[in-house]
Amino acid sequence: MLKKIVFLSILTLSYTASTAQTKSTPIYLDDTKPVAERVKDALSRMTLEEKVAMLHAQSKFSSAGVPRLGIPEFWTTDGPHGVRAEVKWDEWDQAGWTNDSIIAYPALTALSATWNKKMSWNYGKALGEEARYRKKDILLGPGVNIYRTPLNGRNFEYMGEDPFLTSKMVVPYIQGVQSNGVATSVKHYALNNQETFRHTSNVKVDDRALYELYLPPFKAAVTEGDSWTIMGAYDMYKGQYASQNQYLLNDILKGEWGYKGVVVSDWGAVNNTEQAIHNGLDMEFGSWTNGLSAGTSNAYDNYYLAKPYLDLIKSGKVGTKELDDKVTRILNLAYKTTMNKNKPFGNVASEDHKAVAKQVGEEGIVLLKNQNNILPINLNKVKTIAVIGENAIKMMTVGGGSSSLKVKYETLPLDGIKSRFGKQAEVKYARGYVGDPGGEYNGVKSGQDLKDDRSADAILNEAVELAKKSDFVIFVGGLNKADYQDAEGIDRKSYGLPYNQDNVISALAKANKNLAVVLVSGNAVAMPWIKDVPAIVESWYLGSEAGNSLASVLAGDANPSGKLPFTFPVKLEDNSAHQLGEYPGNKEELAAGKGKDQKNPINITYNEGIFVGYRWHDTKHIKPLFSFGHGLSYTTFEFGKAKADKTSISQDDKITFTFTIKNTGKKAGAEVAQLYISDLKSSLPRPTKELKGFEKVFLNPGEEKEVSITVDKAALSFFDADKHAWVAEPGDFEALIGNASDNIKTKVKFTLK
Amino acid sequence: MLKKIVFLSILTLSYTASTAQTKSTPIYLDDTKPVAERVKDALSRMTLEEKVAMLHAQSKFSSAGVPRLGIPEFWTTDGPHGVRAEVKWDEWDQAGWTNDSIIAYPALTALSATWNKKMSWNYGKALGEEARYRKKDILLGPGVNIYRTPLNGRNFEYMGEDPFLTSKMVVPYIQGVQSNGVATSVKHYALNNQETFRHTSNVKVDDRALYELYLPPFKAAVTEGDSWTIMGAYDMYKGQYASQNQYLLNDILKGEWGYKGVVVSDWGAVNNTEQAIHNGLDMEFGSWTNGLSAGTSNAYDNYYLAKPYLDLIKSGKVGTKELDDKVTRILNLAYKTTMNKNKPFGNVASEDHKAVAKQVGEEGIVLLKNQNNILPINLNKVKTIAVIGENAIKMMTVGGGSSSLKVKYETLPLDGIKSRFGKQAEVKYARGYVGDPGGEYNGVKSGQDLKDDRSADAILNEAVELAKKSDFVIFVGGLNKADYQDAEGIDRKSYGLPYNQDNVISALAKANKNLAVVLVSGNAVAMPWIKDVPAIVESWYLGSEAGNSLASVLAGDANPSGKLPFTFPVKLEDNSAHQLGEYPGNKEELAAGKGKDQKNPINITYNEGIFVGYRWHDTKHIKPLFSFGHGLSYTTFEFGKAKADKTSISQDDKITFTFTIKNTGKKAGAEVAQLYISDLKSSLPRPTKELKGFEKVFLNPGEEKEVSITVDKAALSFFDADKHAWVAEPGDFEALIGNASDNIKTKVKFTLK
Repeated sequence: MLKKIVFLSILTLSYTASTAQTKSTPIYLDDTKPVAERVKDALSRMTLEEKVAMLHAQSKFSSAGVPRLGIPEFWTTDGPHGVRAEVKWDEWDQAGWTNDSIIAYPALTALSATWNKKMSWNYGKALGEEARYRKKDILLGPGVNIYRTPLNGRNFEYMGEDPFLTSKMVVPYIQGVQSNGVATSVKHYALNNQETFRHTSNVKVDDRALYELYLPPFKAAVTEGDSWTIMGAYDMYKGQYASQNQYLLNDILKGEWGYKGVVVSDWGAVNNTEQAIHNGLDMEFGSWTNGLSAGTSNAYDNYYLAKPYLDLIKSGKVGTKELDDKVTRILNLAYKTTMNKNKPFGNVASEDHKAVAKQVGEEGIVLLKNQNNILPINLNKVKTIAVIGENAIKMMTVGGGSSSLKVKYETLPLDGIKSRFGKQAEVKYARGYVGDPGGEYNGVKSGQDLKDDRSADAILNEAVELAKKSDFVIFVGGLNKADYQDAEGIDRKSYGLPYNQDNVISALAKANKNLAVVLVSGNAVAMPWIKDVPAIVESWYLGSEAGNSLASVLAGDANPSGKLPFTFPVKLEDNSAHQLGEYPGNKEELAAGKGKDQKNPINITYNEGIFVGYRWHDTKHIKPLFSFGHGLSYTTFEFGKAKADKTSISQDDKITFTFTIKNTGKKAGAEVAQLYISDLKSSLPRPTKELKGFEKVFLNPGEEKEVSITVDKAALSFFDADKHAWVAEPGDFEALIGNASDNIKTKVKFTLK
Repeated sequence: MLKKIVFLSILTLSYTASTAQTKSTPIYLDDTKPVAERVKDALSRMTLEEKVAMLHAQSKFSSAGVPRLGIPEFWTTDGPHGVRAEVKWDEWDQAGWTNDSIIAYPALTALSATWNKKMSWNYGKALGEEARYRKKDILLGPGVNIYRTPLNGRNFEYMGEDPFLTSKMVVPYIQGVQSNGVATSVKHYALNNQETFRHTSNVKVDDRALYELYLPPFKAAVTEGDSWTIMGAYDMYKGQYASQNQYLLNDILKGEWGYKGVVVSDWGAVNNTEQAIHNGLDMEFGSWTNGLSAGTSNAYDNYYLAKPYLDLIKSGKVGTKELDDKVTRILNLAYKTTMNKNKPFGNVASEDHKAVAKQVGEEGIVLLKNQNNILPINLNKVKTIAVIGENAIKMMTVGGGSSSLKVKYETLPLDGIKSRFGKQAEVKYARGYVGDPGGEYNGVKSGQDLKDDRSADAILNEAVELAKKSDFVIFVGGLNKADYQDAEGIDRKSYGLPYNQDNVISALAKANKNLAVVLVSGNAVAMPWIKDVPAIVESWYLGSEAGNSLASVLAGDANPSGKLPFTFPVKLEDNSAHQLGEYPGNKEELAAGKGKDQKNPINITYNEGIFVGYRWHDTKHIKPLFSFGHGLSYTTFEFGKAKADKTSISQDDKITFTFTIKNTGKKAGAEVAQLYISDLKSSLPRPTKELKGFEKVFLNPGEEKEVSITVDKAALSFFDADKHAWVAEPGDFEALIGNASDNIKTKVKFTLK
């Protein structure tokens, strides 16, 4: 038994190579193997406890991987408009890190108002890059709940009232984010169309409205956008909470749509283990443990999908089929995100990102009214500019709920205006009114001190005096991110502008005829002073570049091209949800005190059915303040007569409409061609028209382009609830093409055979 | 001007593909480009501020990347024996996360005692995997400071007294860690050989001792191991702090050794901007800002390599050559770590990791004495076992300084013994003595409650009574991780065992002759009771598997094969640093109060020069308690006569020594063949012999293997300070081969021509 060992003390052995050879890479870590095989292999190596651990949070925003096997944790983050600051392990408070400030992008209403899918991709890509740099794996957004009432405090996080526009705009956002190896979590699925009673209500909606209005954006997000995760909502549907809902999750999402991704709960949206197991939820987050983990390392064991689930399995009461399905979905997600070696590194606050934020803002701002073309501000004539209104100096990136951000910077409207106009004109500011402090979320304040101890009269008088002696007045008002304004969790109390702004605007209009009212909001508002104000601009919440985007539009550097993604009714009662009742819930139940807690939920019936937004106004001939799709430009466009490539189509056919758009003015600009379909005769009531195509066209002065939009029978169909199917009824249709839902320029009739 | 746009509303565009084409990947992000080119490109895109931001911490353990360009942050972590728990952003306190518990690996003295390079690679690989899973980029270790005095509180983190053993053991550790895309940071460079006065002392050492003893492990770490970073020490050398030291960093490390990696400071080791700029430091960490960042987000701007550096550059007082060199090094590091897409995902607490921890422990434990072969415990005879001593029940993974860990578990000696022996024998415990509470670091306690309110006599009596009526007594004592024991920052007060343990051991030896004393320590201790105790085991700090490794050796499941990496002198005065003076510093200066603060540093002269450890004992014929390289086995080995492949060699030649080792006992086991070189005649004084080769050989009973060890002139050389060169003087040498420095089995003479 003589063996030889040669040891060279002068040579260094490289152990790396030798060891790599001794152990072969397990399949689940082998990049050359198909993902399905890797998932199966990983699953086969996991213990029951390791599987269950993956199904629920381990901290406020993270969930466990499998440390033993080297499957990484998942780190999620709010939110749709920018990557949230780091919070403590099990508390909502910010962690006090200094590496977590980011760019705030415009709120999703503004993105939607660009009607530009390329903007949406740029936005998603930039935001995803910031999430990736911040080492986040799942971005909790975008939000695509349909705008049903202007009182919904969270409308600013969504993309408006139209399912087609929302669907088309959300898909590139998702693809942009996910190109970074960061998953989106499209939310809140589904029927969370108001904040009041969001935890304690049961939504009743007919199947037709469900399929035609409320589900399409989610369907597009998961089938076209391939959103790797989807977030369940807080509310109930058919008596089950949405995050553990047989109908929404199993029957529709995973059944009808064949979704293979991961369903995550909204934070704290789970309250029943059996339903969470069986009704399609995959990951549970936010079940209330605030502050517990400091003392008890296993506070998260109390989650509905934690120890209670494990106990059910161990006792034999529940099998492991659902468990393996959930874990399979989560592992698939891992290979796309945490275990994706090809993902880029991301970046934060690059020049590209600032440019994206600014450009989305510029393209999203909607010029609502521009009598006598007083905008853009003519600096040949205007030498003194009065900026009036609290929103000119108010940070809007802090507050409003979970979309609250810690920004690298936020250019306020006044700063943007001063920066753009200050060298050519004298810019002076007066506040005009004082609103809520705002700028706060979970105890984290914006740092702004906006106290003003003067009387309301004094503040208003100062503004009026300034307006009188100025060449031009820009009033910057609207809503803000305080409770009862545009904020998560709490709806608005009324449709009008808060803080007596209507009086301020009226007073300014009397003081100076060169008045532009800029509304900073995520919602429609009443405008009783509309006839007295020559220019009105909807400026949304535009994030870090807010002031610069606005100034750019006011100066005419950017020619406004935004179009409203939702209708501005004249008064609240003109809105269908309010006219037909059941907001914020059933009146009798409301009177009986229902909705106060989860034991006494309140029903909300969507009596208006499919007649939401312009579908309602058009059909019922209720003239809005500003219509869906409306938005002016500093130039003028001319639509040529549209032609179809055929006069009739079969059920499997497509039809293409072609028309020209010409810039007939003197400024380069963009027009959004909107194609609506009208079913001239139908067995069921249908809206007068529905958006089924759009295209934003950029044109230099004098330039003309030919635009073609193709549709197929999907654009002609309604959802037949009795048949539970989409039906396109043979007969005559009309394609209506224009630049607003109330400004159709050219029409083409055609027949479906 | 008519252009065609075709928009298909029924198709979803994939923007990913189109955009990827529109912008080409910049060179610095292009994996196909050479790293040098990528670094140059990144550097060319960075602003001055971005460059400076990379040079210093942004939090307790992280430094900034370049967010704008998508160059990630660096996250560092203690430490050499396991990945430290997460701390708050700018505080030493733990952050209260629950995903950061890990496996504690044996302390580096134990690893070194294995004399098994494969163990070192396994250790590094496993530890690196845990660091990688925890998303760390730089592991702050290993420590390779030479064991100069047994009073050094931090010896347990180092690899002993011999530069050759340390060099050979540290290289595979580094390679193992770095195979994960996680950098090591070999520390503390250099001359930090005691904790007393570590911030306030200036070490004086002759060049020969510097080059022959203190530098070789660092040189091996960076030249053979390619450690991507190295950490500067706290102490001064030639009047400059080590982390900003012209001689150590520029002249030797980056000059003589051509180091291209990154020099990081120890935490708080920088105190001079000009020296930090010019003397070779690349990254500054830990300059005291504790708790500041909560209020001031830019507290880190006050770092020596932050705003002060920027100001010097902006004022033109300093150029950017040094800056670009530092950033180039850091960017190179990024491509190996944070931007390395090929790195694995790591894992935590896998079965492999537990096995590595256990096996390193088993192989590292040194059987110092085993009279009458009372070990392993013979369970045919032994039916009752008394376990006595506080260290049998004391957690050793918490405390001791920055190597303190938050473990998934720590098997205590008593638990390990009960688990191994409990089924076959009755195991009873008595404490014997009470030591310091221990188990605390930065306010984080182990959670153990070791209070004992009884009198010392009662506690001892209980133990003696238990010993008397037991078949076998295992005393588990030694040092611990409390201040003045084995702990960072504070040296031991004396060489003896603390807490009156000598008396306890003597009393036990009288009570029961079947006594094994197990020492849990990272240092040598005095053993006045040595003649009375038949079996002595040095069990080190073995981490999570401590109790299991120990029980395995006591039971004979593992046959001990560890060898001491440092000498155990009989008494402190036998140690050269203590015999020749200058510990803890110059006596006159000490008397004058020097060393109390950085304004009054104290000198420490290493008068003993190269005569450290066995080099001293051998040469001066001072018999140690246990010699360097000593360690017994449960089997016996026989060395055959060694032969050389030649009788004389030239300066460029190599010589190979070959010999057999045979297991002549009845148990499988491992022997460490140690090859020492003796220069029979030299122009300068040389130690009697020096370790220049070793090999651990595993042999079944009766098995024999042939071992060959090759050396070249490096093994024959000394450092000639006058010539500042390594010199191998022609003449006669002798290769001494044995299983301990004081147990040479076979010798071969040869001549260098």
